[in-house]
Amino acid sequence: MSTAVCPGSFDPITLGHLDIIERSTYIYDKVVVGVADNPAKRALFNIEERVAMAEDAIAGLGNIVVTPFDGLLVGFAKENGAQVIIKGLRAISDFEHEFQMAHLNKKLDGSIETVFMMASPEFMFLSSSAVKEIAAFGGDLTGLVAQTTAARLERKLQE
Amino acid sequence: MSTAVCPGSFDPITLGHLDIIERSTYIYDKVVVGVADNPAKRALFNIEERVAMAEDAIAGLGNIVVTPFDGLLVGFAKENGAQVIIKGLRAISDFEHEFQMAHLNKKLDGSIETVFMMASPEFMFLSSSAVKEIAAFGGDLTGLVAQTTAARLERKLQE
Amino acid sequence: MSTAVCPGSFDPITLGHLDIIERSTYIYDKVVVGVADNPAKRALFNIEERVAMAEDAIAGLGNIVVTPFDGLLVGFAKENGAQVIIKGLRAISDFEHEFQMAHLNKKLDGSIETVFMMASPEFMFLSSSAVKEIAAFGGDLTGLVAQTTAARLERKLQE
Amino acid sequence: MSTAVCPGSFDPITLGHLDIIERSTYIYDKVVVGVADNPAKRALFNIEERVAMAEDAIAGLGNIVVTPFDGLLVGFAKENGAQVIIKGLRAISDFEHEFQMAHLNKKLDGSIETVFMMASPEFMFLSSSAVKEIAAFGGDLTGLVAQTTAARLERKLQE
Amino acid sequence: MSTAVCPGSFDPITLGHLDIIERSTYIYDKVVVGVADNPAKRALFNIEERVAMAEDAIAGLGNIVVTPFDGLLVGFAKENGAQVIIKGLRAISDFEHEFQMAHLNKKLDGSIETVFMMASPEFMFLSSSAVKEIAAFGGDLTGLVAQTTAARLERKLQE
Amino acid sequence: MSTAVCPGSFDPITLGHLDIIERSTYIYDKVVVGVADNPAKRALFNIEERVAMAEDAIAGLGNIVVTPFDGLLVGFAKENGAQVIIKGLRAISDFEHEFQMAHLNKKLDGSIETVFMMASPEFMFLSSSAVKEIAAFGGDLTGLVAQTTAARLERKLQE
Repeated sequence: MSTAVCPGSFDPITLGHLDIIERSTYIYDKVVVGVADNPAKRALFNIEERVAMAEDAIAGLGNIVVTPFDGLLVGFAKENGAQVIIKGLRAISDFEHEFQMAHLNKKLDGSIETVFMMASPEFMFLSSSAVKEIAAFGGDLTGLVAQTTAARLERKLQE
Repeated sequence: MSTAVCPGSFDPITLGHLDIIERSTYIYDKVVVGVADNPAKRALFNIEERVAMAEDAIAGLGNIVVTPFDGLLVGFAKENGAQVIIKGLRAISDFEHEFQMAHLNKKLDGSIETVFMMASPEFMFLSSSAVKEIAAFGGDLTGLVAQTTAARLERKLQE
Repeated sequence: MSTAVCPGSFDPITLGHLDIIERSTYIYDKVVVGVADNPAKRALFNIEERVAMAEDAIAGLGNIVVTPFDGLLVGFAKENGAQVIIKGLRAISDFEHEFQMAHLNKKLDGSIETVFMMASPEFMFLSSSAVKEIAAFGGDLTGLVAQTTAARLERKLQE
Repeated sequence: MSTAVCPGSFDPITLGHLDIIERSTYIYDKVVVGVADNPAKRALFNIEERVAMAEDAIAGLGNIVVTPFDGLLVGFAKENGAQVIIKGLRAISDFEHEFQMAHLNKKLDGSIETVFMMASPEFMFLSSSAVKEIAAFGGDLTGLVAQTTAARLERKLQE
Repeated sequence: MSTAVCPGSFDPITLGHLDIIERSTYIYDKVVVGVADNPAKRALFNIEERVAMAEDAIAGLGNIVVTPFDGLLVGFAKENGAQVIIKGLRAISDFEHEFQMAHLNKKLDGSIETVFMMASPEFMFLSSSAVKEIAAFGGDLTGLVAQTTAARLERKLQE
Repeated sequence: MSTAVCPGSFDPITLGHLDIIERSTYIYDKVVVGVADNPAKRALFNIEERVAMAEDAIAGLGNIVVTPFDGLLVGFAKENGAQVIIKGLRAISDFEHEFQMAHLNKKLDGSIETVFMMASPEFMFLSSSAVKEIAAFGGDLTGLVAQTTAARLERKLQE
């Protein structure tokens, strides 16, 4: 059985993330969405909220589990029996950072391969931080995140 | 009458910004310099100071107004009757971020178009943050910012 | 009256070109589609065919003329009373070449400004050469070029 | 059974290609090396020679077949029962071209996914054309191509 | 005597930095490793620790001195009789930032030239921040930093 | 004595090339301008003309010799006692190609180092091919090439 890990902060999960996750399920038997719990990176949502939003967003898609992780990504992949880390590529800045991470992960564990899928054109310029900025100014989130995510964002910003 | 909005933090305004603003006045009837008042982004100068520096720097150029704004840029453009957002492009990192913003703004309001002008070669590598770093070390700001801006920077750094 | 020149080889014109041309008509009073007749650049279609395809494709859009040109682009812009050259930007390779051309054109005639619009996401990866390659292999051109263009391509490839 | 197509001109196959092909066999059950027979692209080696060199170079690796193809890549993938096209990414120029091809292929056949692996650091700057240029000047090909490929290159250049 | 300054934060020094420093000693008579003491940039190690780690790491290499500096880099270069600032280039993001700094330094002092060496392939994706992240998760630092640096990192993270 | 080779096609030499060559003489004792005689690359000027134009253009600058070469660049560097190959970097496309060449040259001869200088802003977008295109259309070459080069270009284009 082929298993792929799809890691990220998912703060919050966007339709761009979901597109990569869904396409991954067509070519891997199982996809583990790994939500990184990295205290050094300040997030708007805490780890439980980010996992919950991801679970709500993938409802209806098969062969996916959402799991929080801390520590090294290659260790998390191994624990989940994954041979592959899958990442979406959007644009140049992604490309640089993702390549750096892929090479370092290869150095840390040569048996795990990172593969990249390009973002679909309509999500090429979408990011979690852009979503948060638009939400903070009361802009419309349709077409950017799932409805359940939009609802949570609104509630969070009213806190 | 064609109106263009030229938005930015202008913390502080540089000769690179002024070059784009001035060139914009040759192809649009009116240019609104929009100074973003974004509390999430830490600025050296407060919004009043940034507006005042921009106004001093454009003195002598016609058909320009300087206006602070908060909220979404597309809303600000609409309120000012602008069909166009104009941005200067310097280099790769700009390019990525500006493209992302342009696509999101298009998604938020399809009637506003973002157009880009390339920075003049002598300003290709100039940024507000570089100016602040040079000023902090007592470097010469000639050719980087207007004299009135340089004077304010010196005063600010002595505070 | 504001006039913009939208130059290219248009060998053939794609839906990506048409998107930029149409969006230009919303912010300029008149758009001149300049079809470059550059004998040094080998084209599949001759200049008359490329002009005819562009004219067919813009049928129904207002305030646009299609005109062939040879010689320097800045001279062509001036003859047409244009203050502005407008170009679509798709991706990094475009960016480099377009910036080089913009700077050289500025050097050749400082009164003409080049402005850029980003390609719409769905056309971000579309090019005339990709269209010709797909057509040569009998692939489906729907969503890539206008129907009249697709028909001409098919006929041309049967010659 | 998961099948991936690894396409290219392979004129000639380099150690960089082989690295991607071998790593692909670890995550897919079968890898089809598709050697493109595109008459519009001038190659040093003809299609039979390029297939033969690839076959020599993969000798000893399991689960790989080498097959020439003409026509659209997505058609070739489908004929071979592949769900995935796998490409190596080296650097920026690759990135742009590969993204364009991936998006067009997705448009031509939505059921085929393109995934990317990054080149190993030691092959990040290796290309078939660099290999041919070095060979033409009598430079050492060790570490760039397989020995059988180097031998064929030498013979070809003496023709 | 030709003298080059090799500046950086070195928080901590990596094998990628050492590769550039060592290669610099082959083409310059003397190399000054300038450790930037910039209070605005938060570092894991203080300036004394960063200097000490660099000194430990270069032990055995000739014609190198390690010196802390604050203030403008061009002033530091001049004080050390250096005509040249030497920087390693890894990838696109570096390239942009390094070009900006080089142009600004040229503007601040036209007599100092910045030259670039490309990172060796095996260090192309290595950075101090990646090293710190791996260390924080208990990953193996072999091949990324010198042994003396790895030991200091471990002690620091246990504080 | 430090010797640097500054290689290129120089078809024709531009003010951008001359800027890099002149700045190289400030940090190396001797600069060898290597004019590549590569029959596979079609040039407007033959090798004798390209050497002559370069010699005319550097007249008045000291410590420079102009020498044609064929074969591998690292061999040419070694014959001239050079430890260093110096290249100007203009923009992204340069960067990729130059990095590839630098890595391959390092692989072919580890004792030769390639160092890069960034183009001065005013020459950032200048290339020999742009110069030839402008000349072909009768554009003004002032500020792009030396006067002696402009004169030769005009004569050549009248042939």
